[in-house]
Amino acid sequence: MVAPANGPAVETVRVERWRNGEVVQDHDLAAAEVPICLEFNGVSHAVMLASPTDLEDFALGFSLTEGIIERPRDLLEVEEQATCEGIVLRLTVAAASFHRLKQVRRTMAGRTGCGLCGAENLGQVFRPVPPVRASGTISAPALHAAFRDLGANQPLQRLTGATHAAGWALADGPLALIREDVGRHNALDKLIGALVRAGMDPGHGAAVVTSRASYEMVQKSAAVGIGILAAISAPTALAIRMADSLNVTLVGFARGGGHVLYAGSGRILAGVPS
Amino acid sequence: MVAPANGPAVETVRVERWRNGEVVQDHDLAAAEVPICLEFNGVSHAVMLASPTDLEDFALGFSLTEGIIERPRDLLEVEEQATCEGIVLRLTVAAASFHRLKQVRRTMAGRTGCGLCGAENLGQVFRPVPPVRASGTISAPALHAAFRDLGANQPLQRLTGATHAAGWALADGPLALIREDVGRHNALDKLIGALVRAGMDPGHGAAVVTSRASYEMVQKSAAVGIGILAAISAPTALAIRMADSLNVTLVGFARGGGHVLYAGSGRILAGVPS
Repeated sequence: MVAPANGPAVETVRVERWRNGEVVQDHDLAAAEVPICLEFNGVSHAVMLASPTDLEDFALGFSLTEGIIERPRDLLEVEEQATCEGIVLRLTVAAASFHRLKQVRRTMAGRTGCGLCGAENLGQVFRPVPPVRASGTISAPALHAAFRDLGANQPLQRLTGATHAAGWALADGPLALIREDVGRHNALDKLIGALVRAGMDPGHGAAVVTSRASYEMVQKSAAVGIGILAAISAPTALAIRMADSLNVTLVGFARGGGHVLYAGSGRILAGVPS
Repeated sequence: MVAPANGPAVETVRVERWRNGEVVQDHDLAAAEVPICLEFNGVSHAVMLASPTDLEDFALGFSLTEGIIERPRDLLEVEEQATCEGIVLRLTVAAASFHRLKQVRRTMAGRTGCGLCGAENLGQVFRPVPPVRASGTISAPALHAAFRDLGANQPLQRLTGATHAAGWALADGPLALIREDVGRHNALDKLIGALVRAGMDPGHGAAVVTSRASYEMVQKSAAVGIGILAAISAPTALAIRMADSLNVTLVGFARGGGHVLYAGSGRILAGVPS
């Protein structure tokens, strides 16, 4: 069984199973989906629906990938409070980070007209993230092995069928980290938080995810200097363009011992299939 | 090929296909993922990343399922403007709807502390949606046939592998409507907009979706009076609880000629398997 770090990630529910005209009363395990309120220095910022596990990783990962803090040490404290409606994560960030966050929020609150139309407000969707300089590489066989490893190590998904996973593949070994969540972006944020907390280098290794790849996943990866993002399923066209411009190696359809490379070819090396 | 209603839904990209140690230069089709800015009466409300198709359906569906308008006729006009960064949907809603929206936004902007902690702010996550009174039913074989139909009729997904679909199944026939999108919630909003625009009754039929079922999909369905929501994959525990309390029939794992019923048993009827 799963031993969640922060709350029950799985709930037992009563169901009716219908098959071939027969109906059977049974129990099933469902993934918890909990409103997580992220509060920065006393000001609520966002409510994310997430699996209530690895919330310290989530807090740090979200703060970094959303550009709220620039360095891990700017997250000073994380307090967790359960309420009847969800979980409040009270984050305390460095004064400079909070000052910047307040400026951004003031701009957003003050705008009329569309955030897409003024250069000033474009940042709401496309934040200025510098291109990734990561020099780490991974061989195609090692990447494919990482996906096999990922497929075999998702306890929440195995129980519930409702979650995504993100893993961290090293160039020469098994998956170093795996995080699961009902949301694919949350799973990536948790992975990134765990990676940074473990002191690992985002520039050496690959983030491997069980979902499709959106522009937001590319942006989150680039924000912390991850050079390789590989997805089991398809990337969107916007994800590909963003990966191109941010120098992220973007891999899709990593399954069945093959993959498709959409951007940044230098970091995937040929190798003898394992 | 797809003939999108509003913009190119598919883009051609250059890729490298890796398989068994061989690398082939090739082209691939990727799903467009476009920032869609929803503006209500001149005030920007949200930016959604979506497939740039069926945007009139999306505009109406989103407005209804997010509770911004209560009746279809409260959406007076939809104007579409392409910008270099995305598409702006300028919606004009009835004065009463806009007044209510402004009140909600003022409450949200003014809050400090967490939206989960005060009863006043809980509405941000759980809006007050009345229980569904739909009396329509569907037989299990008809529901399973609808999923086979849905699987065979997703042109965007067939081309790109990156999109979800939502369909409208009638009690006694094939799928009446199908909408696709890179986002599963958007696909449902487009379906709901199309359903309402076609004058069909949300209380007679079933929404069938190619994804998992989140609490948000249950809430969106209930907001327009849909009685049956059926998903190919798993629901979350929160989706199940919400379906129970809103009297929505929630079906998961609808695949391979079977399904699992999670809430609201009265609306699925036994029948001879087709």
